[in-house]
Amino acid sequence: MREGRRPDELRPITIELDYLEQPHGAVLYSQGKTKVLCTAMIEEEIPRWLKGSGRGWMTAEYSLLPASTGERVQREASRGKQGGRTIEIQRLIGRALRGVVDFEALGERTVWLDCDVLQADGGTRCAAISGAYVAAARALDRFGLARVLTGSVAAVSVGIVDGELLLDLEYTEDSAAEVDMNVVMTSDDELVEVQATAERTVFDRNGLDAMLDLADKGIRRIAEAQEAALA
Amino acid sequence: MREGRRPDELRPITIELDYLEQPHGAVLYSQGKTKVLCTAMIEEEIPRWLKGSGRGWMTAEYSLLPASTGERVQREASRGKQGGRTIEIQRLIGRALRGVVDFEALGERTVWLDCDVLQADGGTRCAAISGAYVAAARALDRFGLARVLTGSVAAVSVGIVDGELLLDLEYTEDSAAEVDMNVVMTSDDELVEVQATAERTVFDRNGLDAMLDLADKGIRRIAEAQEAALA
Amino acid sequence: MREGRRPDELRPITIELDYLEQPHGAVLYSQGKTKVLCTAMIEEEIPRWLKGSGRGWMTAEYSLLPASTGERVQREASRGKQGGRTIEIQRLIGRALRGVVDFEALGERTVWLDCDVLQADGGTRCAAISGAYVAAARALDRFGLARVLTGSVAAVSVGIVDGELLLDLEYTEDSAAEVDMNVVMTSDDELVEVQATAERTVFDRNGLDAMLDLADKGIRRIAEAQEAALA
Amino acid sequence: MREGRRPDELRPITIELDYLEQPHGAVLYSQGKTKVLCTAMIEEEIPRWLKGSGRGWMTAEYSLLPASTGERVQREASRGKQGGRTIEIQRLIGRALRGVVDFEALGERTVWLDCDVLQADGGTRCAAISGAYVAAARALDRFGLARVLTGSVAAVSVGIVDGELLLDLEYTEDSAAEVDMNVVMTSDDELVEVQATAERTVFDRNGLDAMLDLADKGIRRIAEAQEAALA
Amino acid sequence: MREGRRPDELRPITIELDYLEQPHGAVLYSQGKTKVLCTAMIEEEIPRWLKGSGRGWMTAEYSLLPASTGERVQREASRGKQGGRTIEIQRLIGRALRGVVDFEALGERTVWLDCDVLQADGGTRCAAISGAYVAAARALDRFGLARVLTGSVAAVSVGIVDGELLLDLEYTEDSAAEVDMNVVMTSDDELVEVQATAERTVFDRNGLDAMLDLADKGIRRIAEAQEAALA
Amino acid sequence: MREGRRPDELRPITIELDYLEQPHGAVLYSQGKTKVLCTAMIEEEIPRWLKGSGRGWMTAEYSLLPASTGERVQREASRGKQGGRTIEIQRLIGRALRGVVDFEALGERTVWLDCDVLQADGGTRCAAISGAYVAAARALDRFGLARVLTGSVAAVSVGIVDGELLLDLEYTEDSAAEVDMNVVMTSDDELVEVQATAERTVFDRNGLDAMLDLADKGIRRIAEAQEAALA
Repeated sequence: MREGRRPDELRPITIELDYLEQPHGAVLYSQGKTKVLCTAMIEEEIPRWLKGSGRGWMTAEYSLLPASTGERVQREASRGKQGGRTIEIQRLIGRALRGVVDFEALGERTVWLDCDVLQADGGTRCAAISGAYVAAARALDRFGLARVLTGSVAAVSVGIVDGELLLDLEYTEDSAAEVDMNVVMTSDDELVEVQATAERTVFDRNGLDAMLDLADKGIRRIAEAQEAALA
Repeated sequence: MREGRRPDELRPITIELDYLEQPHGAVLYSQGKTKVLCTAMIEEEIPRWLKGSGRGWMTAEYSLLPASTGERVQREASRGKQGGRTIEIQRLIGRALRGVVDFEALGERTVWLDCDVLQADGGTRCAAISGAYVAAARALDRFGLARVLTGSVAAVSVGIVDGELLLDLEYTEDSAAEVDMNVVMTSDDELVEVQATAERTVFDRNGLDAMLDLADKGIRRIAEAQEAALA
Repeated sequence: MREGRRPDELRPITIELDYLEQPHGAVLYSQGKTKVLCTAMIEEEIPRWLKGSGRGWMTAEYSLLPASTGERVQREASRGKQGGRTIEIQRLIGRALRGVVDFEALGERTVWLDCDVLQADGGTRCAAISGAYVAAARALDRFGLARVLTGSVAAVSVGIVDGELLLDLEYTEDSAAEVDMNVVMTSDDELVEVQATAERTVFDRNGLDAMLDLADKGIRRIAEAQEAALA
Repeated sequence: MREGRRPDELRPITIELDYLEQPHGAVLYSQGKTKVLCTAMIEEEIPRWLKGSGRGWMTAEYSLLPASTGERVQREASRGKQGGRTIEIQRLIGRALRGVVDFEALGERTVWLDCDVLQADGGTRCAAISGAYVAAARALDRFGLARVLTGSVAAVSVGIVDGELLLDLEYTEDSAAEVDMNVVMTSDDELVEVQATAERTVFDRNGLDAMLDLADKGIRRIAEAQEAALA
Repeated sequence: MREGRRPDELRPITIELDYLEQPHGAVLYSQGKTKVLCTAMIEEEIPRWLKGSGRGWMTAEYSLLPASTGERVQREASRGKQGGRTIEIQRLIGRALRGVVDFEALGERTVWLDCDVLQADGGTRCAAISGAYVAAARALDRFGLARVLTGSVAAVSVGIVDGELLLDLEYTEDSAAEVDMNVVMTSDDELVEVQATAERTVFDRNGLDAMLDLADKGIRRIAEAQEAALA
Repeated sequence: MREGRRPDELRPITIELDYLEQPHGAVLYSQGKTKVLCTAMIEEEIPRWLKGSGRGWMTAEYSLLPASTGERVQREASRGKQGGRTIEIQRLIGRALRGVVDFEALGERTVWLDCDVLQADGGTRCAAISGAYVAAARALDRFGLARVLTGSVAAVSVGIVDGELLLDLEYTEDSAAEVDMNVVMTSDDELVEVQATAERTVFDRNGLDAMLDLADKGIRRIAEAQEAALA
């Protein structure tokens, strides 16, 4: 747990752009041991309820590969359905990214974001958002649609563990957290989504504020890494 | 939309305790036109992973009856699976209620909370949480397990609609909201869960604070109604 | 079991018309402790095989809420399919109601009947039919389609319990019945559906006749209650 | 339709006992063009809720092979679920056969009845019941359990087509029937199940009686064929 | 196991053409105790991806009836999905038959092949292919489409059991085989599909050659039986 | 297609051993543009039918990530079932690997092989087999179970395209192949599985022999790469 890392320090981030050749955007996003393959595919198709609207859609899917965690998890395709946690996470990723999309600029197209966790060590949903943004930006740029994104977006977890505020929880920290929070922000310091949950103890407004301050710091550094990768 | 209601005013709340005779706890919770039937059943069974731990479990399920909304929605049982929104909501209800449960005091029992929306006019997830608390309290009291609940819990939505802060959004407001937030709090002013989402525009820390202040007011009034119903 | 009720006596019936505001027809139908929420929604859509025929369709769905019975039953939406009993019952409800529908008068519309059992104490399928008729009548009347119904329809159970003929079985009687019968009739004394089943012992034509006589009495009284509710 | 057949005449029946070698009981039951393969398998296993009761269970499954009807029907295994009609029919077959079983004499065993329709020309559910009885009798006899069956059971359809009472409807008649009835009886003239449905017009007690009389005749002849096959 | 049968001898084959009246082609194919009902239905419909191509499609489905094997196997329709073995086999049957189809001559039609195993004693996938060919030939001939088939096709299993090469394995042999092979060939000695699998020991090119020689012999005799049935 | 590559030349192979830290064995196997992440996890659990046998089990699962191909393919977890092709392939991978396993040496453990295709350009099932062998060898070695593998195993595709024999087909070649073959062999030149399919034209024994010769060459080179990676 957090060997030599300060409470307000992120794990090392690496972003391999164009990790694959075939998807329109493909990023291998690593934050510490957490590794998420994020791809973006642009289709000239939209859901039926948008036909004729001149507007597009962006949606995300998420999965943990069976061997991504310490113990093998059953493959959802063979169980025959996506679990509740998966569904909750992929809805969050979709909302987070849609927060910076101009759907009229996109036109009648769908952007599919796929976030497959190759290795999980906490913070996979935040890594998926931060990586998916880079994949989407890359894919849209290739299609001459860079203007579709109205800003950049990144996410980070913060938590209270043994009474201490920590940034970017790894798995052992996450499991022990009293309060757990995920914050999605733009590069302009605007909030896109805030989710704070009492895991073991309730919390107050001061705690919430302190966690938001810490998240804000983390997001800035992730945004820099995203920018560097896309440069 | 909000006929004669002030921006910081809740819709009228009615809580019919013991609405049904057979469940251990049964509450018909209405907030404006939104009506949710919340029941609590206590089983002398626990999930396998808790066996022998001396601890219990509490879990929630949520559904919209097909005719609860303006247009009929397909029954999830006949579609063969619960939708993403349903899963996200029932996970929230479960987390919210578990935030005030002492699982050792509960012992090796499961409390099932079922929240079935008979009529939906916005705020169903919050109404479900506020009603489920009353149903759970009633059921636990009947089993001599009142001490299991470490506090009361209630939820309310707030939002920014046309730039204006509104408490307790009804459906037409919710559909038009720029920012949408659900807050779950205890009667002691502690936070259990905060979820704020940019639906149309991003938001800043000031906006978040103002929404939390407004939510806090609403929660207090709901807590009073819960207390009155249980008295 | 049947406290102070004569063998040929129905349980008290209450029919709350317009129980909800949003569905086209909404009835809370109670017969003793059995409570069924019946709604009717009229859609300007028909199944593909009827397109262009000038004829409409009416179909029913049925469910037991998880806490409606003494022990919680698993929610069918989370099991991922409707059980055999549910399917059998909703097919019966649909056939029963279609028995009094003039589909040409309905035109290319579908009437959806949803029967959700809030509390179950025997006779839920019959209560669902009797209540669904009222909901359908109300909804069709609102659409200026009252002529679609060619008569009224109601259902009642009869059975032989410990050798005695009983009308309107409650749960404990139903569980102990040697023979169990459900009869669907119009207000003109015509039969729509007859289902008699040997649960513990076979039966003969005399027994069948006696059960039909008893059902006939019960149906008349239910038809009066339906008529009063719609007046 | 009914070429040269009298209104009260059954189609020719053939019962090929021991049609297959491997199942404990295997019967190819044909009535006119309708052909149903009925098998019975006895397992030394019972459902969990019967363990320790000393009692057994009998259950039935039914299916239409895809090419059994004039147009290919989709295979239920590839659709991923059994249709409502299938479920309704297999529940009827199970109830009908259980009507003549002494479950204590059976002991803690399960009898599986499988009725697969090779060719369908009306009356498949009745043919399945009549054939399943023979398969069950054969299988139980082989296991020295002949006493488990307290009587024989057979089923036949009757209907009113163009105002005329007809016995043993073939497909074209069934499709045109105003009233459709399935009757399950023992060889002692006792009723096991009666299901009468108004398909196009309601019916009265006289009609019901006339249909029951006609069914009674048909059942006797089927019972003779069953007896001859098992002799 | 192989009572009085030589290692290079097939089990007796019987092919009942027009076993049913309603399908376009219907064959009861028996090889020893293995009995497969093969039907062919021709539909004036094609999958979406072929529309406008002037070409047709042929596809196969396979199932084991629950009582076809020594112990009852659960019905796939009630399990809610086809098992892996079923899917693998029906894909093989489809590929095998498509190997002799001229899809332009077929035109925009689909040929559905259904292979339902009434009794299984080894070699069901091969029997299904050999029988499906006859059913398809019969159905196409009836539609004046005999030219669609560019040749005949048949399949046989071979294996190495206790070090000995055996043709046409029955169940007990198949279960004990070290190497198991299925060969699909045309009547012109051409190969359509070869599948050889090491079940207990790996094998070499000599073994493969010897098995192919043996299969070739068997196929010729099956092709004669097919021809005789269709003559 | 095959730019500058000889007909009997493999695409470049890279095998990244220990690509992830958490699985017991993790290999990123690339052959040309085809990239498959192969992991092996060893569990101290076995399927019920093996309990008490002293023997273990090895099984494989396969999936294409949605963006792995030129066009996005729907995620099987969200479709609710694995497709036929997936099932066929994962059964092949399992059989291939089990061909070199001594299950008594493994003891009552299960080896799970997961093959997730990150990028697909033909030959994914063969790459999955070749990579899964390396992952399994690595995992077993870590558990002191190296003796469980009785040999190495690798797979390669060969085909006839425009009349020419080609080794290691890439996607455009595979789509155009007249005959397509997958061969699984040990490092000792023994065959484990042979699957040859006529895609457009049938083939003869000479063609089969020539394809096997070519496959044999390819397998040797892949075996060298596997050995080097594990050294």
